[in-house]
Amino acid sequence: MQDIRFGGDYNPEQWPEEIWLEDVRLMREAGVNLVSLGVFNWGIIEPAPGEYDWSGLDAIVELLHANGIGVNMGTPTSSPPAWLRKAHPEIRLVDAEGRTLAGGSRHGVCPSSPAYAEACASIVDKIAERYGKHPAVKLWHIHNEYGWANVECYCEASATAFQGWLAEKYGDVDRLNEAWGTAFWGLVYRSFDQVEAPAAAPPGVNPALRLDWKRFSNDEHVRNYRMQREVIARHSEAPATTNFMIPNCEGMDYRRWAGTVDVVSNNHYLIAERPDHQIELSMSADLTRAVANGPWMVMEHSTSAVNWQPRNIAKTTGELRRNSLAHVARGADGLMFFQWRASRAGAEKFHSAMLPHGGTDTEVWRDVAALGNDLKKLSAVVGADVAADVAVLWDWESWWALELEWRPSVDLKYRERVEAYYAALWREHVTVDFAHPEADLSGYRLVVAPSSYVLTDAASKNLRGYVENGGHLVVSYFSGIVDEHDTVHPGAHPGALRETLGLWIEEFHPLHERESLSLDSGAAGRIWSEHVRLDGAEAVARFASGPDAGRPALTRHDLGRGTAWYAATALDAGTGLDELLATAMDAAGVERPQGVPDGVEVVRRGAHRFLINHTGQDVQVPGAGVDALDGTAYDGRVPVRAGGVVVLADA
Amino acid sequence: MQDIRFGGDYNPEQWPEEIWLEDVRLMREAGVNLVSLGVFNWGIIEPAPGEYDWSGLDAIVELLHANGIGVNMGTPTSSPPAWLRKAHPEIRLVDAEGRTLAGGSRHGVCPSSPAYAEACASIVDKIAERYGKHPAVKLWHIHNEYGWANVECYCEASATAFQGWLAEKYGDVDRLNEAWGTAFWGLVYRSFDQVEAPAAAPPGVNPALRLDWKRFSNDEHVRNYRMQREVIARHSEAPATTNFMIPNCEGMDYRRWAGTVDVVSNNHYLIAERPDHQIELSMSADLTRAVANGPWMVMEHSTSAVNWQPRNIAKTTGELRRNSLAHVARGADGLMFFQWRASRAGAEKFHSAMLPHGGTDTEVWRDVAALGNDLKKLSAVVGADVAADVAVLWDWESWWALELEWRPSVDLKYRERVEAYYAALWREHVTVDFAHPEADLSGYRLVVAPSSYVLTDAASKNLRGYVENGGHLVVSYFSGIVDEHDTVHPGAHPGALRETLGLWIEEFHPLHERESLSLDSGAAGRIWSEHVRLDGAEAVARFASGPDAGRPALTRHDLGRGTAWYAATALDAGTGLDELLATAMDAAGVERPQGVPDGVEVVRRGAHRFLINHTGQDVQVPGAGVDALDGTAYDGRVPVRAGGVVVLADA
Amino acid sequence: MQDIRFGGDYNPEQWPEEIWLEDVRLMREAGVNLVSLGVFNWGIIEPAPGEYDWSGLDAIVELLHANGIGVNMGTPTSSPPAWLRKAHPEIRLVDAEGRTLAGGSRHGVCPSSPAYAEACASIVDKIAERYGKHPAVKLWHIHNEYGWANVECYCEASATAFQGWLAEKYGDVDRLNEAWGTAFWGLVYRSFDQVEAPAAAPPGVNPALRLDWKRFSNDEHVRNYRMQREVIARHSEAPATTNFMIPNCEGMDYRRWAGTVDVVSNNHYLIAERPDHQIELSMSADLTRAVANGPWMVMEHSTSAVNWQPRNIAKTTGELRRNSLAHVARGADGLMFFQWRASRAGAEKFHSAMLPHGGTDTEVWRDVAALGNDLKKLSAVVGADVAADVAVLWDWESWWALELEWRPSVDLKYRERVEAYYAALWREHVTVDFAHPEADLSGYRLVVAPSSYVLTDAASKNLRGYVENGGHLVVSYFSGIVDEHDTVHPGAHPGALRETLGLWIEEFHPLHERESLSLDSGAAGRIWSEHVRLDGAEAVARFASGPDAGRPALTRHDLGRGTAWYAATALDAGTGLDELLATAMDAAGVERPQGVPDGVEVVRRGAHRFLINHTGQDVQVPGAGVDALDGTAYDGRVPVRAGGVVVLADA
Repeated sequence: MQDIRFGGDYNPEQWPEEIWLEDVRLMREAGVNLVSLGVFNWGIIEPAPGEYDWSGLDAIVELLHANGIGVNMGTPTSSPPAWLRKAHPEIRLVDAEGRTLAGGSRHGVCPSSPAYAEACASIVDKIAERYGKHPAVKLWHIHNEYGWANVECYCEASATAFQGWLAEKYGDVDRLNEAWGTAFWGLVYRSFDQVEAPAAAPPGVNPALRLDWKRFSNDEHVRNYRMQREVIARHSEAPATTNFMIPNCEGMDYRRWAGTVDVVSNNHYLIAERPDHQIELSMSADLTRAVANGPWMVMEHSTSAVNWQPRNIAKTTGELRRNSLAHVARGADGLMFFQWRASRAGAEKFHSAMLPHGGTDTEVWRDVAALGNDLKKLSAVVGADVAADVAVLWDWESWWALELEWRPSVDLKYRERVEAYYAALWREHVTVDFAHPEADLSGYRLVVAPSSYVLTDAASKNLRGYVENGGHLVVSYFSGIVDEHDTVHPGAHPGALRETLGLWIEEFHPLHERESLSLDSGAAGRIWSEHVRLDGAEAVARFASGPDAGRPALTRHDLGRGTAWYAATALDAGTGLDELLATAMDAAGVERPQGVPDGVEVVRRGAHRFLINHTGQDVQVPGAGVDALDGTAYDGRVPVRAGGVVVLADA
Repeated sequence: MQDIRFGGDYNPEQWPEEIWLEDVRLMREAGVNLVSLGVFNWGIIEPAPGEYDWSGLDAIVELLHANGIGVNMGTPTSSPPAWLRKAHPEIRLVDAEGRTLAGGSRHGVCPSSPAYAEACASIVDKIAERYGKHPAVKLWHIHNEYGWANVECYCEASATAFQGWLAEKYGDVDRLNEAWGTAFWGLVYRSFDQVEAPAAAPPGVNPALRLDWKRFSNDEHVRNYRMQREVIARHSEAPATTNFMIPNCEGMDYRRWAGTVDVVSNNHYLIAERPDHQIELSMSADLTRAVANGPWMVMEHSTSAVNWQPRNIAKTTGELRRNSLAHVARGADGLMFFQWRASRAGAEKFHSAMLPHGGTDTEVWRDVAALGNDLKKLSAVVGADVAADVAVLWDWESWWALELEWRPSVDLKYRERVEAYYAALWREHVTVDFAHPEADLSGYRLVVAPSSYVLTDAASKNLRGYVENGGHLVVSYFSGIVDEHDTVHPGAHPGALRETLGLWIEEFHPLHERESLSLDSGAAGRIWSEHVRLDGAEAVARFASGPDAGRPALTRHDLGRGTAWYAATALDAGTGLDELLATAMDAAGVERPQGVPDGVEVVRRGAHRFLINHTGQDVQVPGAGVDALDGTAYDGRVPVRAGGVVVLADA
Repeated sequence: MQDIRFGGDYNPEQWPEEIWLEDVRLMREAGVNLVSLGVFNWGIIEPAPGEYDWSGLDAIVELLHANGIGVNMGTPTSSPPAWLRKAHPEIRLVDAEGRTLAGGSRHGVCPSSPAYAEACASIVDKIAERYGKHPAVKLWHIHNEYGWANVECYCEASATAFQGWLAEKYGDVDRLNEAWGTAFWGLVYRSFDQVEAPAAAPPGVNPALRLDWKRFSNDEHVRNYRMQREVIARHSEAPATTNFMIPNCEGMDYRRWAGTVDVVSNNHYLIAERPDHQIELSMSADLTRAVANGPWMVMEHSTSAVNWQPRNIAKTTGELRRNSLAHVARGADGLMFFQWRASRAGAEKFHSAMLPHGGTDTEVWRDVAALGNDLKKLSAVVGADVAADVAVLWDWESWWALELEWRPSVDLKYRERVEAYYAALWREHVTVDFAHPEADLSGYRLVVAPSSYVLTDAASKNLRGYVENGGHLVVSYFSGIVDEHDTVHPGAHPGALRETLGLWIEEFHPLHERESLSLDSGAAGRIWSEHVRLDGAEAVARFASGPDAGRPALTRHDLGRGTAWYAATALDAGTGLDELLATAMDAAGVERPQGVPDGVEVVRRGAHRFLINHTGQDVQVPGAGVDALDGTAYDGRVPVRAGGVVVLADA
């Protein structure tokens, strides 16, 4: 049985060697079994072109190995050394404003630069050659946070690469013209080399150009990853990963990364000023599980505050434990932190760490050590899956397209609706999967489509088939409007869902800023109203105010053996959203945990049930089994202390 | 008798040919008599340099002609093709930040570029040669929205053109030094080629340089228009226009376009989030009439929502009709829309159209068809003028100069005061003309100068003569401060109006943000206070609070046979502004419609009176005549339904 | 006995010669004894390279001299002429965004440009040669407002100069790597020429790089000053200055200017929209005295409104006099204004002047003339010092470092806390000195460290010694965190003060936006909370709410013969801050003026006491002596009229 991976980024080069021994002693004390090395050490191991210094890295790998701690070996390509920038100024990133970015930080290089790629291949080859067969190396950590600050580059090399990418995708430039609708404004191209990168331009840049640019920009990072992966494979059989940032790196479509990594790993940092940051964490974990299609690992999270948010709110007592076990509950088989020991210098010295500036007589350190030791008792969950009856549709392409310029309202935000529906389900203790609109949905009793703005013909057909075959579908407004080129489906909106929903939209009626309206059901709506024309569906509720007063606001359409619901406004949490979902779940036969107090997260993973009490009160949750951490047996009601967590193994 | 022009932009190239026949059938159904073609088709008709494809355009022109629909033939120069940008990268616009703008949209080219001008001349020549004598072509639509996104370019070619423009204007560089006051900060020039374009610079750029740069930038677009006009005249006798954007394109001084167009046409889009957007529409129409010095036409407006505002609020029931007839009432002899059929792709697919995505079973389509048929009954208004007793002064140069950097207060906004005075008159059902400060004002009983910051010596003399000869003048603060070079008139403020107003200003006292003050008349003021020193005038009201408590706030000066009023603060609507205007109108003998309910717009145009009910209640308006649309005769009280319009022909 | 210098910037080149005679007559009427000439006249005296025109300047110097008015001779290098920009385009400033700044304003040049330096040296040599021995020249005014708009340049010449500056500072690049902590993210350098200027870059630029860049940028201006000073010294024995902008030019560390000027002069403009702008003025004056280490002069302030603030609020009645005498009270031996006569053209025509557009029949002119004549009666204060028992620590390096990116909270602002503590002392009528953390503090009874984020080891030792030797120290949170390279001191925070304060911080707890908390003492706190661990100190008050409820909020530590207090939150004015300071002042034996009404400023300078009544009520202040302005003798209670000032000479 494999243990849950536990550890963090380790940067011994920032410390004198006498500290290393203390580090390793404390790692053992805390149950650390894996550390990430060398994520940013390029300038140290290759101080000048072709000149290598392995002394430090060799020593630390041996030290860790001798102490039974595994190595997650990094490739340091996200922070190319100063000499490379000096020798090849053309690798510097050019942003959308035309600014050539300066150094002194990481990431500021062009992902399409040949000179950069060549230098990457060279250093990765050297590292893999040296450590590829070392028994300490359990995992490869390629690059760091692809897309963090250099997701898009607008230099000439990038523009040329984009033209090549388009040529490969479309073959013939007239297929591009057709796909992009370039007849509009006469923006037709005669050859691929006439296409410009969509840098700063007058408003109204072709949206299909923007979408393909985003796909291309993502793919250039995939290309770099694949190249590094292949180099490593020549020297090592250890698995490889790169740390994703799901879903807080909007520029990366992680669906396009499918099949690239051996282990999906994710960085997740609380958005600490959000009052609902715990729900955001759950959503990140569920999305990561969707990307992994099974278990995954946290590559970075924080023991307490970070340093790059406006106000870096520290975690409260017990929050580190609750966060960590929520990740495990939702599929994580590893919990790594950035970073082991708090830095004294540099940009991130105010970032929390496993070992804070204040040392071991601190709550953070005690919590880290306790967590490491708790995790040893949870090895049984490794590899187990999380089951869900409900799927929420998620598609990076809808996110990208929905938030391009010149939409009906700036209040239309992809995540706004997804999070609203997700949060409503979370509050009902319903665990969900995220799924792509073209995925096989037949295993779900209920599918929710909060913001499916882009739906391809295939997705349209998929959703219709899902309903006809007995599925239950809840759709929110501004879904099914366009295809993958941001072209409106023919006929009335929503073209991809008209028949499934049994209605069409005569006109959109975005609301004024902060305007709200009411439904005759008593629910409230914001952001959106529209003129719904029924064509098979029936009105479940009608607008009682606003531009469409008297017209349908919530509809239901029985189709084949299933049912499709539609909400024509941004239902607020409470009466509106919760009632709609409750009705749909009842109809779909979705079972929800009963008797669970508000604010308590309940997630089943394999043979374990995680009970996480986010409230300030001691509670009791119905259930039976054995506490995996302390061995207590329960049969009926499980007490969970204020802020506490119980992991219940099936009896 | 000519019909009112009715139709819209037509872009058949976005649709398969089978749609064209449906289009023309529906156009006839709706009474369309004119469509704009080819506004953006450069890349389609000239797919490569010197290679032309007329097939589509030929066919559509014939089809329209066969169906009795006239053509407003565009020149496609606002959207130059990708091949031109590729072949001549130097035509790309450089903005004030030094960014070279990318393609993928329209307009992003330098208006001073020789290569661009040459390509424009060439394509216009080809189009005019081909269609110049075609009987379907009723009008030429040159370019599109001059100044929309490329009003100013900061490339080297532009800087050189600017130097030439200055040399032509000033002849001798010492005249420029004198005019610009370059002794300040020692910014003197020894030759014209030392003048730089005023791109990003440290704060405090010479304001006279900025003003001349704005004039130059405007004139470069005029130059392009004139060039195209001359090319067309070689092939065609049809009249020509270009679509202005009055007054929402701050960069264009449409007074400098006088004499360039055969027909003044204007694009007007509701600023839908403004609660007073109906008044803004009226003001735009009145301003356009001033530019046209008579009837004009709407070249673009929308049937409902646009797509480029933050929240694109749709029109409410009846609003399309009220908007359209308000334009006609204020001088429009044509009502064209952007666009005929809603696009499926591109940047503007969420813009409303005459034929929406939802097709003909929609309120928008029914309203469009009804409007087209109503307009046929209003042919009698074509060519008729609108009479006004009151003029409001308007001058783009004051707008530009008033909002340059380093004014006494950022709350000083040109349009803020103009709109405040205009709206107060609108609410009193008073139709106004807009006039330039140097224009002959002798025909007006009352002249209002809300923001006449720039007044030349000629304007100063003009206004004084107007009053001395019996005119009534109402002036708001910060008027008459500088001359055309933004140089303060000698002596105390307001130098150009001191004698006319019989007072001088010892010191300006801008208020704090959101501060307000009161007058002893009970009125309230915002933004501004000042220390008024009477020198012939008398105080009509005094400040009761604020930095000038006890000092004059409203004054009156009898001069010759007339009277000049002055308001030393931003009077709020209600007591202050309305009372001042009522007093002045009474004194001037301005007659106002009596018995008209609030929110009902009443405008006389020639032998017709337009009664437009913007309220939600049925109302009655005093009047007599025959309803031009349904033939009902009224004698005494005319009922106008909630949201409705009655056009009353004199009996 | 020398008179207080009184006058302003004089720009006769903006006016015809007939005005000059009126100017001089009025100067004499107002008691003007010094005017600044030629601050911006480079383009006038050197209209083309090597071509000089001295006629105007010669004439005006003679005219002034003949009228007994001294000359403060400017060097015009802050506004280089257009011909220099044209001949040497490489002198143009490149900003952090990579924009090359245009002309038409002043200052837009690279401070490291060799061509600019050469041209400066040449023109200064010509001016100094011509006027260096003229008896009218009393002072040299080198450049204008170093650092106003060109504090940093990112051109290649600047980057090269930076590399040279670093090489000189560190000698060996490994010392730089050590100091900057470049092991973090592997940002190591192999040679100085690999260091880039920190222009636009991805987030997370090395903070030590940023700090050294700020030091370098400051020093480049010092270098230009020193060069000019040396040129002048070859021709003249008159003293020299340049006008500082303390403390409102964040880019200049005036401590690094120590020893450069013969007379410290400062520009101070009210931040008029701040309700506490009077206190801000006092603080500026006290800081300037600290920089001067004794008396100084105001080189520029305004008679009323300026023109570059958002809303340029005019001074109220008597405010010009109160402002002016407050400067004198706090050490000013000169009061100069920008400018003598209000300009008609250019960027600053709406800036108030000694002689406004409205002429001499104005309150401003009467106040200026009265002030000039009052000052003649205050010659006795010239050279006298201001004594203080309390020092507030001030260090530009802490300001710079505290506000770099990625701090624990964006609400951490250097001036916020300094101003809060300063204002609390001001309200208690306590005059303070500002002092550097490494300065000899033994003369002060109390030292306050509101925001001493950077403390070097020397400063740490200095503060500890101060307390041990009987001093009283009040420290606010986030002080003593890092050293001069922004490297965290070893161990727990606050490393530089841990032992002095007898405590350590386990974790920072920045509050949410607008969050507040309470202490068990009844005080309120904002912005900050933290987990204080006592280690010798005792808790004086504890948090009653917030993330650290129950933990120490205010502490006291007796160390040696002194005491150190600590505040772990942003105490609000009122209960919290005032009580803490009162307690500390009582303990330290700081005497405060008794019986002085709120809002009355009382400052002793040498043998004079300035009583400045900022309230709208007549007040009485305990005191005795003779009114230096009107000769009245008081013994016990001195009446000061509403808005008035009394200068009391010791009897």
